[in-house]
Amino acid sequence: MRVAIVGATGLVGRTMMQVLEERAFPVTSLVLLASERSAGERMEWKGETLVVEPLTEPLPNVDIALFSAGGSVSKDWAPRFAATGAVVIDNSSYWRMDPDVPLVVPEVNAEDALKHKGIIANPNCSTIQLVVALKPLHEAFGLKRVIVSTYQSVSGAGQKGVDQLQAELAGVTPTSRISTHPLAHNAVFHSIAEMHGDSEEEIKMQRETRRIMHLDELNIAVTCVRVPVLGGHAEAVVIETVRHITPVLAAEVFSGAPGIVLEDDPSNNHYPTPHGVADSDLVHVGRLRADSSAPNGHGLMLWVVANNLRKGAATNAVQIAEILS
Amino acid sequence: MRVAIVGATGLVGRTMMQVLEERAFPVTSLVLLASERSAGERMEWKGETLVVEPLTEPLPNVDIALFSAGGSVSKDWAPRFAATGAVVIDNSSYWRMDPDVPLVVPEVNAEDALKHKGIIANPNCSTIQLVVALKPLHEAFGLKRVIVSTYQSVSGAGQKGVDQLQAELAGVTPTSRISTHPLAHNAVFHSIAEMHGDSEEEIKMQRETRRIMHLDELNIAVTCVRVPVLGGHAEAVVIETVRHITPVLAAEVFSGAPGIVLEDDPSNNHYPTPHGVADSDLVHVGRLRADSSAPNGHGLMLWVVANNLRKGAATNAVQIAEILS
Repeated sequence: MRVAIVGATGLVGRTMMQVLEERAFPVTSLVLLASERSAGERMEWKGETLVVEPLTEPLPNVDIALFSAGGSVSKDWAPRFAATGAVVIDNSSYWRMDPDVPLVVPEVNAEDALKHKGIIANPNCSTIQLVVALKPLHEAFGLKRVIVSTYQSVSGAGQKGVDQLQAELAGVTPTSRISTHPLAHNAVFHSIAEMHGDSEEEIKMQRETRRIMHLDELNIAVTCVRVPVLGGHAEAVVIETVRHITPVLAAEVFSGAPGIVLEDDPSNNHYPTPHGVADSDLVHVGRLRADSSAPNGHGLMLWVVANNLRKGAATNAVQIAEILS
Repeated sequence: MRVAIVGATGLVGRTMMQVLEERAFPVTSLVLLASERSAGERMEWKGETLVVEPLTEPLPNVDIALFSAGGSVSKDWAPRFAATGAVVIDNSSYWRMDPDVPLVVPEVNAEDALKHKGIIANPNCSTIQLVVALKPLHEAFGLKRVIVSTYQSVSGAGQKGVDQLQAELAGVTPTSRISTHPLAHNAVFHSIAEMHGDSEEEIKMQRETRRIMHLDELNIAVTCVRVPVLGGHAEAVVIETVRHITPVLAAEVFSGAPGIVLEDDPSNNHYPTPHGVADSDLVHVGRLRADSSAPNGHGLMLWVVANNLRKGAATNAVQIAEILS
């Protein structure tokens, strides 16, 4: 298949290149596209040197176009690529709530990908790892309510986030910022539009979780926090269920669940961490505990960690492409 | 009053010295005590140079002994100081659940301090800031359930925690560790005794919150996480209440509550952060939101931040001393 990556020079674009190679995606040719500013850059892929081209017109004969160049590029260019017959898999938030655009996490709703009309949206990084963990729990126990607090790394905001944190840790003034607050030694929020309102990220997690799981009425409350971590997102999750649930029952469900690795031996210091998922394409789950604050036997607490550039972005996009190939 | 600080050379001990001066506590003489290893060290206080003495016998004529030298020192030495007529205010966890020892946060249960028998326990840092925020909410709305996820700085584990994080960030092998996992660019848990069990820190927060608030049956679920932050603890808190609650009603309650500062203008990037509490003795509350996952009008989400060495330890201990003076 002829594959294009739009936004190839960004953190997610680069990871898409790696993941295509690692998963041996059947690429017959790979075209790298980026803004005028990045065009001309040379990048290595499978031992070849590829030159990044500027995005000036939709390329013909592309089968799959992986987009990760921001919402405005996706808004303008995804339909133009789709019009040539390509299937666009878009990592921006622009199309995610469009009823004509499936929003897909393959472990959860692979079948939705097949209903596409040329564009498929890749969900928010924090949403992806959450729904992979929630899906088997919902099937086995029935979800009534979900409460999530996130511990999100700065690479979720792309190279700019990494640059701000690294500059601050080095004692240097950052040349660009994702937050007016310091990121180093701090905990901050994503953009918030109004007092007493959710942040953009919190709204995404709620809406996207409901849409991917086809649970329009799911009760879900989210607090999204950026912590001074370069890569890897963690989530403290509390659920209430319709049916009886225990940590042992949940562990059994997870042991056979797609895309999940259970790491739950905390007395030996074994549990998922952002460090531990550096090379992982899976969603790591641990710290299964009964929620003693919930009605007896109907609450579970868990800790969910994934690599936000891989399963939270590039890997999920390539998995969607695999459904189509 | 004649004041002794046992464990004067530690992070909390040093902060106790500062806070005694800042709050103009009526000290007639200050005695600094520490282990044999630290004895002889010279420390400045109010322009004087004091020499740290080894802890070899309980000093006579001490009115207030502030302890922050670990549980085993408190176990052995607090009763010996109390036997001389001193009142011990102990920052370790050793005496906190002893029914003969009041566990006190002055904004919440100052009256309990007066029932002491020579020892008063200072609660866990994460517990202190939580109960200061919960108390006015409970009085106004009635607490039914509390769910907390913490974002705790490494100074909560003392100088060793600071040393491990700083060494790792500098690319140096730490000489001592508080976690077998890396702290830098990571999110880790406190010690956990058994699979599917709470960590020691999570157990402390539940038990101490119930005890300080005199709510033995309070439903409370806690996930305690250590993040790579030098100082300042944050908490994402979700509560369910008996009576109708809204963010506006909660803001009114907080505006008159002792020890609280409300910082809640997130659309202008104004909310509490660990950075923002570096010099504060107060509990900072923000991001008041309706919990849309709770029964309508009976759920609130909030973000609670405090300086763990000050209000979470030294300041709270000195405030207890002020009740007695």
